[in-house]
Formats: sequence, structure tokens, C-alpha cells
Amino acid sequence: MELSIIKIGGNIIDDETKLAAFLDTFAAVKGKKILVHGGGKLATRVAEGLGIRQQMIDGRRITDAETLKIVAMVYAGTINKNIVAQLQARGCDAIGLSGADGNAILAHKRVHPTIDYGYVGDVDAINSSLLTSLLLLDKTLVFSPITHDGKGQLLNTNADTIAQEIARELSAIFETSLVYSFEKSGVLMNAEDDNSVIPRINAAAYQELKEQQVIFAGMIPKLDNAFTALRSGVGKVIIGRAEELPQLLAGASGTTIVNE
Amino acid sequence: MELSIIKIGGNIIDDETKLAAFLDTFAAVKGKKILVHGGGKLATRVAEGLGIRQQMIDGRRITDAETLKIVAMVYAGTINKNIVAQLQARGCDAIGLSGADGNAILAHKRVHPTIDYGYVGDVDAINSSLLTSLLLLDKTLVFSPITHDGKGQLLNTNADTIAQEIARELSAIFETSLVYSFEKSGVLMNAEDDNSVIPRINAAAYQELKEQQVIFAGMIPKLDNAFTALRSGVGKVIIGRAEELPQLLAGASGTTIVNE
Repeated sequence: MELSIIKIGGNIIDDETKLAAFLDTFAAVKGKKILVHGGGKLATRVAEGLGIRQQMIDGRRITDAETLKIVAMVYAGTINKNIVAQLQARGCDAIGLSGADGNAILAHKRVHPTIDYGYVGDVDAINSSLLTSLLLLDKTLVFSPITHDGKGQLLNTNADTIAQEIARELSAIFETSLVYSFEKSGVLMNAEDDNSVIPRINAAAYQELKEQQVIFAGMIPKLDNAFTALRSGVGKVIIGRAEELPQLLAGASGTTIVNE
Repeated sequence: MELSIIKIGGNIIDDETKLAAFLDTFAAVKGKKILVHGGGKLATRVAEGLGIRQQMIDGRRITDAETLKIVAMVYAGTINKNIVAQLQARGCDAIGLSGADGNAILAHKRVHPTIDYGYVGDVDAINSSLLTSLLLLDKTLVFSPITHDGKGQLLNTNADTIAQEIARELSAIFETSLVYSFEKSGVLMNAEDDNSVIPRINAAAYQELKEQQVIFAGMIPKLDNAFTALRSGVGKVIIGRAEELPQLLAGASGTTIVNE
């Protein structure tokens, strides 16, 4: 049975028109599907409104106790429930989940030798039995990037990582495709030229492109994640523009990443 | 199969110690169970922090578009996910839902001849097939008082009403008890004396107590709701203090409301 796992980033969530158009195409995707959404700027706006200062290290939000309250609100509340309501309006039977719901995603608070990331969670386990049960009930799952530690603590977790971990775990049961949608058309030969998409990359080509320094730094964690997923049994990983979701899934757009 | 549906009010949610103690007893309740939680003061605090003025009419929050964003955040995000995480920590396999999730609770925006309540929803349908499937997967359901209209709009709905509507619908499938927990020990003969609990009321006694004006005004909507639920097949309705949940379910505390 085929399963599509699609991650959308903040740039889509922040733009009402883009989000509506994306949800039109997502609702029309055939077969079992899971959407994983990131955060976007709303959390920052709410935090600013409430006078909570946001600290970023290496592009990651430091999640202190007050910030965790905000991201739990915004990600698992506003964003998740609005996406679910909009998918329901499109005839897609969506159910929104955080990692705490049904113990879907168990994580632990990140331990780092020098940086205290606060309430940031690294994933330990995906509850594939729960996810499979819900998918077999014909539900579309919509994940917010909030997890828990099993001891009552919510944690803030990277949405790319959640999508990858779910894909790895469920690839044992489903024929799984993982789509990372973002603001560019795919992996580019020339970061300045959105028409220079590399349609297909395998592990050998990736090694070569990295050595030639063709692939810009920001793509490397995404591609490393993609190859990790492929080595764990995920069928294919596709990187491209959210607006082109049907074409991405058909392999007609974006970059498809394969093992061989 | 027995099903307990328990509604907790804002006074428990606002008090971390009371909430933790309540969740201890709730996690220990045997059999299938559903928790419906109200809002509490956090939504008001967040709205004030963000400079959104709250308007109340007859004790109900008028839910304008900005207020709806706040209640969706706080109820479906912070409160719901924290309760779920804390139940998971107690070995109770909880899953949090709004009415939009899996189209669990369909509602419509309230139409009123003179008052514009804003984005307040009155319940049209409970998705008993979804709820039954999840209960049969041994999940404990935790509902926030957020519903949707099936057209993409989230709505703010009274938690007492949600508990009652779920109880009515599921009483066709389960042997259902409905518990309204609040800040008093039960229905009182003397509103000033918390020891004057009436242990059992049937329809005839209710009529008489109303005529004698023994029952104070604030209890009447709760009791009317309770009798509506009983007439629709709910086995029993219990009103009492959240701190006494095991005693309430055992009929050893609070007021049990029965048809005959």
C-alpha cells in the first residue's frame, strides 16, 4: 500500500493563499497520506506580543519554558487545527496529532555539551501501531512538530526530522514516499538559478556534487536526512516546491533522491 | 461496555496541583473513558497580553475572529496537549481531539435574533463511528471545546454541551455515565452549605425542587442538560466535585440524576 509523507515549511503556512492552494492539491493526493507542518512566523509574533524574547542559535529557536507554551499553542493549536478544518472542508478526513497524542512520537530533551536548547526534543520512537491503525481507518494524519517525553513534558521538535522518522518507521509497512517541500524548485546546480534543478540524485552523485561544492550548505542537512531515510527503507525522497505537489509526486518536478 | 464521560471545568484547569490530582484519579478510572475540558483563565490572560479585548454576554465569551484564534491556541493547543502528555505519563493512552479532527464534532455558527455571538458553534452531529473506533483501539479521548462547521471554520463550543452531546450519541453503543465536575459538592439544598448535597434526583423531584425554588438559578441549565441526556439514553448523570471523581463514579458522592 502506498503512503505519501509530505512536509510543508513555514513559508507556506505564513501565506494564507499559498496554504489554501497547497491544501487543494494535498487533499487530492490519492492513497494514504501524512502531512507534517512546521511553525512559521505566527509563534514569533505571538511571543513578541506577549513580551517573550526569542533566542536563536544556528537558526534554531531556543525553547525556554515560556517559548514552549507559545509553540505548543501555535503549532498544535492554531496551525494544526486550522489545517485540519480546511482539509475537512475539502473532503479529506484529516486528524491532527502532536507526538503526545496516543504516544505517537516519543522524544527526549536534547542533551548538548555546550548549548542548552531548552525544551527541544530528539525523537526516540514512532508509534507505528497507532499510525497504521489510523491510516487503515482512512484518516489523513496531520502532525504538528510537538512531541513529548512520556513523563508529562511537551517538547519542540524539528518538523523535517519528524517527517523522516515517520517515513523510516512506516516504510516497514507501506511503500513510502517522503516529500520535503520548501521555497525552491529542488536541489539546484546553481543556487541563484531556480531553473537549474537536478532532477535525480543518487548517493554517488551526491558525493561528487558535495566534493565539487555544487550543493550549497543549507541543502546538506536535508540531503543527509534524505539518504538516511532511503537507507532505512523509504522508497524515494523528493525535494521541491510545495506549489508543485502533484508534479513532485509524479516525479515530473523537483529533485528525486534515490539510493542507486 | 461501560463508558465514562467526564467534564472538568476551568477551576481545575487553572490550578496545576488540582489538575495533577484530578488526572491521577482520572487515569485510574477503569474501562472506556472520555474527558471534555473547558477553557479556564489562560485564554483571558493571553488575550489581555496581546491587547485583545474580551466581551462577555450572559457569562459567555463573545468569540470574534481574534478571540477565536486565542481560544483555538489555548484550548486545542496548550491545555489539550498538556493534559494528554500528563495522562500519557500516568500510563493512560490519551489522544487529544478538537471537533475538526476526524470530523468528530460538526457544528454551525450560532444564529441569534439579537446577539452576535461571533464564532460560537452549536453542535449538529457527533461522529460516533470515529469515537467508537478510537475507544475500541483502547484510546482515552480528550476533547477541547473547539468544533468546526465542515467548511473550514473553527468554532468555540460550550464544553458542557459537548459532553452531553457525546454522551447522548454514544449511549446507543455504550453503557454511558456522564459526570459534570465543578467547584461544588453537587446539587445543594442550600446554596450556602456545601454539606447539603442532594444525593439523588429524579424528574419528579427536580420539578418539585424547582417549584419550591430550592435549586438556585445557576444549576438549572446543568440539570436541564442532564435530564435531556437521560431522556436520550444516557444511563446516569452525576454532578459533583472533580476532586471526588472515584466517589462520584461509585455513587458515593455528589448528586446522581436519574430518570425515575
